[in-house]
Amino acid sequence: MAVRLSPPDPADLHPIAGVELGFAAAGIRKATRPDLMLMRFAAGTQVAGVFTQNSFAAAPVQVCRSHLAAQAAIRGLVVNAGNANCGTGARGLQAAHDTCAAAAALIGCDAQQILPFSTGVILEHLPIDRLVAALPRCVSGLAKAHWAEAAAAIMTTDTVAKGASRRLDLNGTTVHVTGIAKGVGMLQPNMATMLAFIATDAAVSAPALQLMVSRVANRTFNRVTVDGDTSTNDSFVLIATGCATQAAGHPPIESEDDPAWQALYAAVTEVATVLAQSIARDGEGATKFITVEVAGARDEAEALKVARSIANSPLVKTALFASDPNLGRLIMAIGNAGVVGLDTRGVDLYLGAVHVIEHGERSARYREEDGAAAVAPDEISIRVLLGRGAGQCTVWTCDFSYDYVKINAEYRT
Amino acid sequence: MAVRLSPPDPADLHPIAGVELGFAAAGIRKATRPDLMLMRFAAGTQVAGVFTQNSFAAAPVQVCRSHLAAQAAIRGLVVNAGNANCGTGARGLQAAHDTCAAAAALIGCDAQQILPFSTGVILEHLPIDRLVAALPRCVSGLAKAHWAEAAAAIMTTDTVAKGASRRLDLNGTTVHVTGIAKGVGMLQPNMATMLAFIATDAAVSAPALQLMVSRVANRTFNRVTVDGDTSTNDSFVLIATGCATQAAGHPPIESEDDPAWQALYAAVTEVATVLAQSIARDGEGATKFITVEVAGARDEAEALKVARSIANSPLVKTALFASDPNLGRLIMAIGNAGVVGLDTRGVDLYLGAVHVIEHGERSARYREEDGAAAVAPDEISIRVLLGRGAGQCTVWTCDFSYDYVKINAEYRT
Repeated sequence: MAVRLSPPDPADLHPIAGVELGFAAAGIRKATRPDLMLMRFAAGTQVAGVFTQNSFAAAPVQVCRSHLAAQAAIRGLVVNAGNANCGTGARGLQAAHDTCAAAAALIGCDAQQILPFSTGVILEHLPIDRLVAALPRCVSGLAKAHWAEAAAAIMTTDTVAKGASRRLDLNGTTVHVTGIAKGVGMLQPNMATMLAFIATDAAVSAPALQLMVSRVANRTFNRVTVDGDTSTNDSFVLIATGCATQAAGHPPIESEDDPAWQALYAAVTEVATVLAQSIARDGEGATKFITVEVAGARDEAEALKVARSIANSPLVKTALFASDPNLGRLIMAIGNAGVVGLDTRGVDLYLGAVHVIEHGERSARYREEDGAAAVAPDEISIRVLLGRGAGQCTVWTCDFSYDYVKINAEYRT
Repeated sequence: MAVRLSPPDPADLHPIAGVELGFAAAGIRKATRPDLMLMRFAAGTQVAGVFTQNSFAAAPVQVCRSHLAAQAAIRGLVVNAGNANCGTGARGLQAAHDTCAAAAALIGCDAQQILPFSTGVILEHLPIDRLVAALPRCVSGLAKAHWAEAAAAIMTTDTVAKGASRRLDLNGTTVHVTGIAKGVGMLQPNMATMLAFIATDAAVSAPALQLMVSRVANRTFNRVTVDGDTSTNDSFVLIATGCATQAAGHPPIESEDDPAWQALYAAVTEVATVLAQSIARDGEGATKFITVEVAGARDEAEALKVARSIANSPLVKTALFASDPNLGRLIMAIGNAGVVGLDTRGVDLYLGAVHVIEHGERSARYREEDGAAAVAPDEISIRVLLGRGAGQCTVWTCDFSYDYVKINAEYRT
């Protein structure tokens, strides 16, 4: 049950000139629903990505890194749901390469120009024959309008497809930003079983695009946490076809100093924020969407430590599931964040607009019923002021419910 | 429901010469059961302790640190269950001091010679009047045989009282080591809502005792984790009365180079290990007791990072609750441990005696039914070999069940 989250209206997802999408039911996840997705990009498209920090990076992640490092002109990507192709050794790497080779043959490019992505069960071999057999159907159905279907095809235990879109003016030309993502469990800092693909028809140089994808990831997907675990397959890819601005005769955006970079960055951040929040709203078993904001830290890193300590605490998350304003667990989580030399007398905490902790103690004006009212809704805001400096950050998470245990205890059965 | 854990048989808990214990129902936790405990120590007793690293260290922890730092000759301690006296500011500190003063007046010493401990709800003021009113009953009932009753009096959401005892020969004199603990939620590295008191009638100098308490904590209580949260009140105190060995004319143990130090350290470690494991067995909602052993790390700290990453992963813990040998989550947790430069091809993993991951991949001989059989019992062993060095460690934890959510969602209601 996702918290205030609906699938995107296909009409709201702007097509991106230079991006076509196709999908098919390959029978990797379930026989009856699409679980394979292919994107084809126009010549000249730039692609940049950020990937999991997990030591057991999956085979497709390794292949993506290698293809991007080789500065191949990426012409397409393939995503399968239902199998992560991770912990599968040389055979798994071969399967990822075979995926690229098959897609490349179909759309007429080199295998190195394809990026492969997988999500699903770990340590099982990818049924590469079924995947390859279904690829021609992806290609024959390629269309610019298929963003919503693509969002559905990459889902695993997601209950709602995730997509978002923006339109903006760059130097008199209308450009678009459209993205899709899948998330759910194993989510935490550094993205975790999350795949996100955001495309724009603006033109951006490779270094300017790499800077943008890193910075957006840090401000959005890396600020979502469901259970503190991170996956072996997370990937966030940013695609710039250039089809809109090049047609208007504009050169590619080369640097963050260009006002167009800033405008595009803002739009991509908006799309990524919607997608990141959607992932928390659809966290496994989520009944509450929780925003944790920390300010007054020495720096942003310190603020992030405190926000994650709260957002990852099972004790805080189970209390919020019960709509219990359990102040003790909140200060416990703040105190555990590893902030060196924290003077707790400088700490204030608000639940919504209710001032509950003042100078490190329960506020004299705090009434339990006010706290209870603040955590009763399905959207909860927690704000911590550390009183040490100007560092701040925001993290999104969800509560920990019976259904979280149920879903994760029964995931494979 | 604790995993294979029974309350200690009072007959198995050896009295410690120089330690008397009393208890009373003060009405702090529930009106009908003992929730206050006092220990009185013979003159000449040495006491050393280790305490929570949480920034919001509770008032009693602050007072304990100050009394121990002042090198006061500790003559007693007071423990209340039901209220943690944490986040209570100046009034909380005063309540902890008042506790010491009241106990000191009753047993005839200075307030500085008493150590106070509290466990329970955070951010509520300690009902000091009720505590002080009940102390005379603790004192009038003081007896050397009351270890089991003391273990019961300090429980909060523990379902089973925890105690252990050993007897050993030191240079021809029989000495004893007896300990009690309470644990349950908010457990993780660095001890967390855990109180443990271990006493011996051997004589140990202050520095040698401090070394022993730190080293024992590191090998036992700091190796238990229930949910990755740490509390504001954890304390582990080691008490050496010296009554047995001084009566025999032996001087105090002065240094770890003394073979008697090593023998006593081994016995205290055994008692602490039983207590620490008891805490994991009685973790909130626990249905499985899980031992995670990591070897082949560069050093012990690296082994500990990997063991804790596994033991704290909600995804691993929910899978084990379901008796699901979910190998993917195990390698995910290993990969998330932050081991720099981990070559996953060197990683092996066993569930019980079943070799499941070999050189970073699913073992060719692995059969799902063997894995399922290995995680079916209520005691599960996970062994990871990293293939990088000689560092190793063992961590104990429990699974994550529906009841964990239920207990924590309803704790205060």
